[in-house]
Amino acid sequence: MSKSVNIGVVGTGFVGGCFLRQLAPIAEKTGINVVAISKLEGTIISPEYKPLPISADFTPNSGRVSPVELAEFLAKSPVPAVLVDNTANQELAMAYPEFTSRGVSIVTPNKKAFSSSLELWNKLQNPTAPALVYHESTVGAGLPVISSVKDLIITGDKIELIEGILSGTLSYIFNEFSKEGAPAFSDIVKVAKQRGFTEPDPREDLNGLDVARKVTILARLAGLQVESATSFPVESLIPKPLESSSSAEEFLSKLPEFDADIQKRKEDAKARGKVLRFVGQVDVPAKKVIVGIKEYDASHPFASLTGADNIVSFKTKRYPSPLIIQGAGAGDEVTAMGVLGDLVKVTQRIAK
Amino acid sequence: MSKSVNIGVVGTGFVGGCFLRQLAPIAEKTGINVVAISKLEGTIISPEYKPLPISADFTPNSGRVSPVELAEFLAKSPVPAVLVDNTANQELAMAYPEFTSRGVSIVTPNKKAFSSSLELWNKLQNPTAPALVYHESTVGAGLPVISSVKDLIITGDKIELIEGILSGTLSYIFNEFSKEGAPAFSDIVKVAKQRGFTEPDPREDLNGLDVARKVTILARLAGLQVESATSFPVESLIPKPLESSSSAEEFLSKLPEFDADIQKRKEDAKARGKVLRFVGQVDVPAKKVIVGIKEYDASHPFASLTGADNIVSFKTKRYPSPLIIQGAGAGDEVTAMGVLGDLVKVTQRIAK
Ligand SMILES: NC(=O)c1ccc[n+]([C@@H]2O[C@H](COP(=O)([O-])OP(=O)(O)OC[C@H]3O[C@@H](n4cnc5c(N)ncnc54)[C@H](OP(=O)(O)O)[C@@H]3O)[C@@H](O)[C@H]2O)c1
Ligand SMILES: NC(=O)c1ccc[n+]([C@@H]2O[C@H](COP(=O)([O-])OP(=O)(O)OC[C@H]3O[C@@H](n4cnc5c(N)ncnc54)[C@H](OP(=O)(O)O)[C@@H]3O)[C@@H](O)[C@H]2O)c1
Repeated sequence: MSKSVNIGVVGTGFVGGCFLRQLAPIAEKTGINVVAISKLEGTIISPEYKPLPISADFTPNSGRVSPVELAEFLAKSPVPAVLVDNTANQELAMAYPEFTSRGVSIVTPNKKAFSSSLELWNKLQNPTAPALVYHESTVGAGLPVISSVKDLIITGDKIELIEGILSGTLSYIFNEFSKEGAPAFSDIVKVAKQRGFTEPDPREDLNGLDVARKVTILARLAGLQVESATSFPVESLIPKPLESSSSAEEFLSKLPEFDADIQKRKEDAKARGKVLRFVGQVDVPAKKVIVGIKEYDASHPFASLTGADNIVSFKTKRYPSPLIIQGAGAGDEVTAMGVLGDLVKVTQRIAK
Repeated sequence: MSKSVNIGVVGTGFVGGCFLRQLAPIAEKTGINVVAISKLEGTIISPEYKPLPISADFTPNSGRVSPVELAEFLAKSPVPAVLVDNTANQELAMAYPEFTSRGVSIVTPNKKAFSSSLELWNKLQNPTAPALVYHESTVGAGLPVISSVKDLIITGDKIELIEGILSGTLSYIFNEFSKEGAPAFSDIVKVAKQRGFTEPDPREDLNGLDVARKVTILARLAGLQVESATSFPVESLIPKPLESSSSAEEFLSKLPEFDADIQKRKEDAKARGKVLRFVGQVDVPAKKVIVGIKEYDASHPFASLTGADNIVSFKTKRYPSPLIIQGAGAGDEVTAMGVLGDLVKVTQRIAK
């Protein structure tokens, strides 16, 4: 008899839908059974833990279930169970300990739980057996970023500096902005929004908070006790006077007034042979975490980045010339792949 | 009672010694017990599977044990067992099925078994439970190269092109050779040898076979039925007339006679804005594998490589802009780290 796990999937949006499509063809051979799927409009639950059809297109047999109800259902599964959270939901994230304390594993691309209070982070580091918590896609989507930090740490390497371009949106904006003959900064932001590269309100990308959340996760993995994603300096790209704009439209219409500042910064950097990039940095020995614009030499790997790629660099005792990982850090396919890769690894460890 | 595995370690050289030093401080918390250590001069065996002191500096209590004897000893272990092969030994590599068929897992940086016959490769893909076979350090040392290919494949991505600079020695030689005002090719080879960057006989690096072995492994992971490391075109950097030189010294003394050829090739590339790099390529859809010199644009990530770093690029359906991994691909610390990282993962999966 082959080993299996039972999973409950919450969220069937951009990433969740893609996750289910990627899972369907490999579920049987990897021993992964779906026993619950939940979206905002309702939930389908398999009362006797028989495998459900793997599809986002289901007829709910139940209303919305609370995190505790779902945790209790999964905890009673006859084989080890996993919550796959494909939402950005705060309530569910805060309720992860309801799962892990009942021995239910968690696999998720949702950054909320890992970048909130240190107390929650610490709880999630000590799940009740056989529970495991994997969240590769919270940083760099499917890129092997989190697994690499964990490998460095567990084998005893000493991380000195983690540095990365961790937002696809800000990668695109600064890569475009450093091109020869680039348009004004505000024009690049507008095009990025038109092309769907930003959140509906681009200020959610430009405020740096998404990067700060990812950097919080990396810093904690490296051993720093970072209190929250707002407990260290984060440089916002939203000019102070525009923080209170009442809408994305008003914000975008006024942004050109501030082009001169960042244009000058770019030209000053260029005079020194450098380009601007929006990065997160974790200086482990100094216990210093920052997010903001930094300058890089034209020959630096961060300077030759293109498109909306992410890049992360780990300078360690064993890698004085850094270990670098680069590639798409957002998008449904690569994010879902990170979730599914984690789920396969969790299954290999806990299936019964 | 916490779970554990028993391991037998063969080889305590450059990598094996470092592996033991890295393992010692984490053995207890990860549940890894050493029950046999073997070097050419002799073996220490713990007859009742009690943990041995973790050190390369031991007094043998047995002569050399054959692979089958070691496999039998490990197979009788009361908890799951792992062979950690830190040699480049061909005989031991060919005997891996003696271990895997008895349920003993294998962790190794030794390329021999994975780049030899396809028959042996296929056998190692189907070990007897609970045996697993992990070999991250056979390509790119501790860099997450093999684990990344496996994650792409298992989650259903389609790999289109794998391309990499996979030899630290040849990375160094070509990185130096493409610098402004670089010395002659033969001079760079000589300096590389003096600095200990090459094998005692540099022809073992220049013949391309080490790269061919690594490319064979990557191609097989990507699904190609590559018969052996010599079943596809490999461009040797040893000029034909020097293949029969009787010694490394004779070879190096005659190498300058051939500098003009490669110097011209470099200058021709430069005129096109390109640099030369020694790479392996796996074109998966076309089922084509090659190893040799290729030209890259100055803006290509392969062109800005420095030192002796490795770099591997995966162009896939999900990563049209490739997933790239870069960093040191040789050296005792990073190679041992790859072995230890694998061992921890195997332990997490099979410990009892
Ligand atoms: N997209 C990316 O490139 C990317 C990259 C890295 C990480 N992530 C993370 O991946 C997660 C999902 O992102 P996404 O782009 O897929 O978002 P999305 O398209 O907005 O999907 C969110 C899904 O969650 C569902 N949902 C929200 N709250 C729920 C609740 N309480 N109960 C049940 N279902 C609930 C929504 O239901 P309805 O369908 O009914 O509205 C929707 O299906 C987020 O945490 C995001 O930060 C995304
Ligand atoms: N070095 C690197 O940067 C690197 C990178 C990637 C992969 N690797 C791979 O790692 C492996 C080890 O490399 P290394 O640099 O550590 O080589 P090494 O320093 O020559 O060490 C080899 C060790 O194996 C022992 N040995 C050989 N045959 C044996 C046998 N039949 N029984 C018991 N012991 C045996 C030797 O014993 P004695 O000590 O008694 O001579 C020595 O301790 C090789 O497969 C290599 O290709 C190395």
